[in-house]
Amino acid sequence: MSTATIEERGAVASTAETMKAFVMEGLGKVSLVEKRVPRIGPGDALVRTTAALLCASDVHAVGGALGVRHNLTLGHEAVGRIEKLGSAVQGLRVGQRVTAGAVTPCWRCENCQRGYPSHCGRVLGGWKFGNVKDGNLAEFFQVNDAEANLCPIPDTIPYEAAVYTCDVMSTGLAGAENAAIPAGGTVAVFGLGSVGLMATAFARLLGAGLVIGVDSVPARQALARRYGADEIVDFRKAGPVEAVRRLTDERGVDSAIEAAGAAESFANCVKVTRPGGTISNVGYHGYGDSVAIPSLEWGAGMADQTIRTSLCPGGRVRMERLLRLIEAKRLDPTAMTTHRFAFSEIEKAYHLMATRADGIVKALIVF
Amino acid sequence: MSTATIEERGAVASTAETMKAFVMEGLGKVSLVEKRVPRIGPGDALVRTTAALLCASDVHAVGGALGVRHNLTLGHEAVGRIEKLGSAVQGLRVGQRVTAGAVTPCWRCENCQRGYPSHCGRVLGGWKFGNVKDGNLAEFFQVNDAEANLCPIPDTIPYEAAVYTCDVMSTGLAGAENAAIPAGGTVAVFGLGSVGLMATAFARLLGAGLVIGVDSVPARQALARRYGADEIVDFRKAGPVEAVRRLTDERGVDSAIEAAGAAESFANCVKVTRPGGTISNVGYHGYGDSVAIPSLEWGAGMADQTIRTSLCPGGRVRMERLLRLIEAKRLDPTAMTTHRFAFSEIEKAYHLMATRADGIVKALIVF
Amino acid sequence: MSTATIEERGAVASTAETMKAFVMEGLGKVSLVEKRVPRIGPGDALVRTTAALLCASDVHAVGGALGVRHNLTLGHEAVGRIEKLGSAVQGLRVGQRVTAGAVTPCWRCENCQRGYPSHCGRVLGGWKFGNVKDGNLAEFFQVNDAEANLCPIPDTIPYEAAVYTCDVMSTGLAGAENAAIPAGGTVAVFGLGSVGLMATAFARLLGAGLVIGVDSVPARQALARRYGADEIVDFRKAGPVEAVRRLTDERGVDSAIEAAGAAESFANCVKVTRPGGTISNVGYHGYGDSVAIPSLEWGAGMADQTIRTSLCPGGRVRMERLLRLIEAKRLDPTAMTTHRFAFSEIEKAYHLMATRADGIVKALIVF
Amino acid sequence: MSTATIEERGAVASTAETMKAFVMEGLGKVSLVEKRVPRIGPGDALVRTTAALLCASDVHAVGGALGVRHNLTLGHEAVGRIEKLGSAVQGLRVGQRVTAGAVTPCWRCENCQRGYPSHCGRVLGGWKFGNVKDGNLAEFFQVNDAEANLCPIPDTIPYEAAVYTCDVMSTGLAGAENAAIPAGGTVAVFGLGSVGLMATAFARLLGAGLVIGVDSVPARQALARRYGADEIVDFRKAGPVEAVRRLTDERGVDSAIEAAGAAESFANCVKVTRPGGTISNVGYHGYGDSVAIPSLEWGAGMADQTIRTSLCPGGRVRMERLLRLIEAKRLDPTAMTTHRFAFSEIEKAYHLMATRADGIVKALIVF
Repeated sequence: MSTATIEERGAVASTAETMKAFVMEGLGKVSLVEKRVPRIGPGDALVRTTAALLCASDVHAVGGALGVRHNLTLGHEAVGRIEKLGSAVQGLRVGQRVTAGAVTPCWRCENCQRGYPSHCGRVLGGWKFGNVKDGNLAEFFQVNDAEANLCPIPDTIPYEAAVYTCDVMSTGLAGAENAAIPAGGTVAVFGLGSVGLMATAFARLLGAGLVIGVDSVPARQALARRYGADEIVDFRKAGPVEAVRRLTDERGVDSAIEAAGAAESFANCVKVTRPGGTISNVGYHGYGDSVAIPSLEWGAGMADQTIRTSLCPGGRVRMERLLRLIEAKRLDPTAMTTHRFAFSEIEKAYHLMATRADGIVKALIVF
Repeated sequence: MSTATIEERGAVASTAETMKAFVMEGLGKVSLVEKRVPRIGPGDALVRTTAALLCASDVHAVGGALGVRHNLTLGHEAVGRIEKLGSAVQGLRVGQRVTAGAVTPCWRCENCQRGYPSHCGRVLGGWKFGNVKDGNLAEFFQVNDAEANLCPIPDTIPYEAAVYTCDVMSTGLAGAENAAIPAGGTVAVFGLGSVGLMATAFARLLGAGLVIGVDSVPARQALARRYGADEIVDFRKAGPVEAVRRLTDERGVDSAIEAAGAAESFANCVKVTRPGGTISNVGYHGYGDSVAIPSLEWGAGMADQTIRTSLCPGGRVRMERLLRLIEAKRLDPTAMTTHRFAFSEIEKAYHLMATRADGIVKALIVF
Repeated sequence: MSTATIEERGAVASTAETMKAFVMEGLGKVSLVEKRVPRIGPGDALVRTTAALLCASDVHAVGGALGVRHNLTLGHEAVGRIEKLGSAVQGLRVGQRVTAGAVTPCWRCENCQRGYPSHCGRVLGGWKFGNVKDGNLAEFFQVNDAEANLCPIPDTIPYEAAVYTCDVMSTGLAGAENAAIPAGGTVAVFGLGSVGLMATAFARLLGAGLVIGVDSVPARQALARRYGADEIVDFRKAGPVEAVRRLTDERGVDSAIEAAGAAESFANCVKVTRPGGTISNVGYHGYGDSVAIPSLEWGAGMADQTIRTSLCPGGRVRMERLLRLIEAKRLDPTAMTTHRFAFSEIEKAYHLMATRADGIVKALIVF
Repeated sequence: MSTATIEERGAVASTAETMKAFVMEGLGKVSLVEKRVPRIGPGDALVRTTAALLCASDVHAVGGALGVRHNLTLGHEAVGRIEKLGSAVQGLRVGQRVTAGAVTPCWRCENCQRGYPSHCGRVLGGWKFGNVKDGNLAEFFQVNDAEANLCPIPDTIPYEAAVYTCDVMSTGLAGAENAAIPAGGTVAVFGLGSVGLMATAFARLLGAGLVIGVDSVPARQALARRYGADEIVDFRKAGPVEAVRRLTDERGVDSAIEAAGAAESFANCVKVTRPGGTISNVGYHGYGDSVAIPSLEWGAGMADQTIRTSLCPGGRVRMERLLRLIEAKRLDPTAMTTHRFAFSEIEKAYHLMATRADGIVKALIVF
């Protein structure tokens, strides 16, 4: 793509040559640095960032979850205005307000064609921002396959709401969709961080009759109730398996959603799910060699339970549907914004996220 | 049901009062004893056994897998002729040749209505024969909800073939159905005992383009080839994960079927399955507290893989379809009959099954 | 079943010998008559009616939709208290407040086992009340397979709400379930009678992002807005196809639900549905020989559209989930009760229903 | 794309400037003409044709099915060698033997992301060859989005077999997939032209227990038997509805596949399908304004039947699976080649196809 800049279309004359970017210098080390503005190819877009969210995955990455990275720009949840478009891009225009999927597949490769764009090229390969290419905690970011991976934001929706469609809402929805909740059915959501909260909201929005949230942090519990949890189980006060079973007349739930990313929580999901039910995992389980399925409650492998997993699904179509739900006031994600920072304060925000201090759910970064 | 016999219809005058039955006397102890012929209620049938199969589950049961049982008749795979019918039974007649599902649900309870009749009443509760009531390694056996759980055998099909529809074919088919194999897709079957062999046959019959069987026993390997395996992986000669990956150009399979009932085999299924693929478990995993999912190949819980499980599905409709496949010569299950015994020799057959000696796959018991 | 009464259990001593019943005397003729209280068999229940709803199907029946019937008790939507239970019934008790499915399958026959209990025995065969046996517009009614077809009503839910689970809510939900609406997707509901209103409510409850109701009656339009329609199309004011296309940026809807029972409305559903979308029919199309699919918008049979149909699904499990949604205040069906009558006034109610006068949506009959 | 040729990579020096192409001059008129070799853009490929098939759709097009076209090259089923590749194409190389999907989506637009690439851009919009751009009955053809729409052909498979993956096998498979045939279930295929024959083969390959082919042409009947039909119904000898019902013990089939493209045949599909069954349409119904669903057998819109439709699905992944089935000898499509012509004889071939003379099924054109 050495000739890429030749092909750019509609470039704004004054686009800076350099920009500020929040990078992982190496394992365990972050900083705000000056970087060259990314170049774009024929199918790409350059976006001027207006708002972003920090994600626990950024902290995982710095901790080594993705291996060693040097000077990689972090971040995969951001919105902004289109600054430049590659020569082949159609259906978008410079200046447009857009949201960019955290996962940006090519949509053409084998896994994409198979219906698994999140695994573009290889397992988890759709996740490129802040992983295999520079992320979007920067003043500008490049979006591959822009037509398919950017979605215009309706004028009525502020950036601060739209930025939740990049990852949090999409992943939470995947958790609820994969849970195969019958209309009027029962569901337990383990872990009420931002993804768990959206899984709670979508479990309710997709027709669950009883939504049980499981978490011990009061602020999260309160948000879960706001997003539609009918019951809250505080696992510090009672065994969560027993509590969930009690709330379902000892039948167990139709569906359980693992959004805590803890092996014990995953095992509890299996334990509370009735025969024929579904366990939907959206938690990250990268810290151990394996995750255990408890044999007894799994019916020794014969209980007709289904265990499904998902990485954040991307794509313009999905983001458009999520934006429609925000616009139609089915769901307001901004209640999850517990903290706001200017981009210049990003290091402070990062350390808050890393320490999970001050009841943080999501930190919004304003550019 | 104390008045049950009053309601019997069409009883053959000479039905004996007592019969021979092969029982689990207690943990670790079996014997052929004299027992009273079972009584039947209004919705039941009494069947005069003509052929049966021994199952590894019978051996598991005697070993304690179901807890302590006293004088319980073993067996859940049997065919025969209808000897008596309860007063409320319609659509069947005395003298009819029938196959009886290993799993005999009530079809009315909550789990049955939910679409999971194998878990009638409670998890695995559809499995009644040789578990919570007397089985059918006996001269006669009682069938609850006979209309729904017995299926007439077409005249062209011998008992020796039909008896495979009770469990082995139904479970093997469930393994293949749950595997969600795309037409022309790739599948690996781990464990080529009778259920694994039928999973192999059905993977082929449902349109797989590449069927890989994994087992180390030559006789089973030969049967797997006969039933449609395109490739055989002998895990004594090579790492099965590497071998399967090599056979799929390092992409992994679309679907893996666990029919070995071993934790290592289950982990291997996860390891060979590509993102978005399905692991279908039909193996019994009751010997440990848990079964481990390897995190890395599971994409840390985000690889869009699905893990499904199943107990043998029962029901007249399913058996009718299986019989149709036998009749249409799509599949001949009798190649799995490696040994034949008269019912009087049942103890000998049992000990052969228990020791897995002499390359046994299935032992047919003729009455 | 001539000995049925012998088997009754827990009968209340004072059950009357005769009762009032509202019958179809013959084609076009109804009246309130004295009838013998129904007898019950071992698996049945007798229910003392407390509330019922008139249905347009009752009017169709009297008009000849089911053929000639003599002195058949009408009605299939009713709740009450259990008066007697057959000897084989478990899990229910005399005196319990219950709702009875409009469709009461046997749950054991071929179609039931195939997963289509609404077609128990034969097409539409699950519909027995007021069709092939006496209905429940009577002081008592008999319920076959009571364990599976009656559902206890929680104390917190009044009869007047619970009676909507028999048919209206179940059918409306089927309309929305079969429509396969993506989360945040778009749906048009044609016909806003009681079933269309519930389809509207459930489209919203299952996660639609835009729900468009199509009807010309102001009272129904108002109810549709109350139940969650975002937009209303009045087909007297504008072509409904053009209006729906305009509301979806000329893309058409993801899903259309036909609840009007009119051939033109069905064709419009096809016309407004985008490629790959779903048309879900719950309307009754029995008045002509055929219903036409418009070729052009059907992509000449290649548009990847799906047309699904449904009769009201029955069963205790489904009613329990519907009751849970009422209890959890997700949905209040009683806003559809536009008229209330004592059972003695049933003929008046019937004629109102038959003439569709006075803006009637549903007439509640109180016993 | 005016600069496209600059971006070509690996072009063979001697590629001709002009080529022979078989065109639709206008409505009702075809001829073999000289045309400029197509130019390619960055994501495209140029393929040197080695074999092609004529399709009834080519005849429909000339007859006006797509509207007026001038000098449009016909054809959408072809294989060949890659002659040139656009600068952005990865994973393919010049000289490679490839098959090209009849449907060549962009894989990025809204309908593609929704999972309906056949409707790329608009309904049926994935079909570009011989429709909205020049087809491949020419010495060279251009393939858009080549990475996703070309599939390498294994060395063991001759062009003459591979060319059936472009359309006939893919569409026939779609017919069988959409039919949702239960393992061991019953299916009727109406119309045994090439697509119907492949639907027959795939119905068998996907596990049907009884496959009934309906056609009156002896040569097609013979091919249907060869491809797996268990029974043949000749509608000149008996009413096909009655015949199919008789072959299924008056129960009707689980699934019916319409591959005749006739309204009467579509109605018959509905008539022979049991409640809860599926009608899968792959026939072209563009000759009338509408296609009628018979009300009675459709259960007046309540029989839980599903009607699905499909245009030929494209994509490298699908063609790879189809090629795997050919390579594994599950299916040999070449038995459908009833006629062979050199490209210079294409007009003769076309007129044979147009008149359906000489028992033609498929005419192979060799370059």
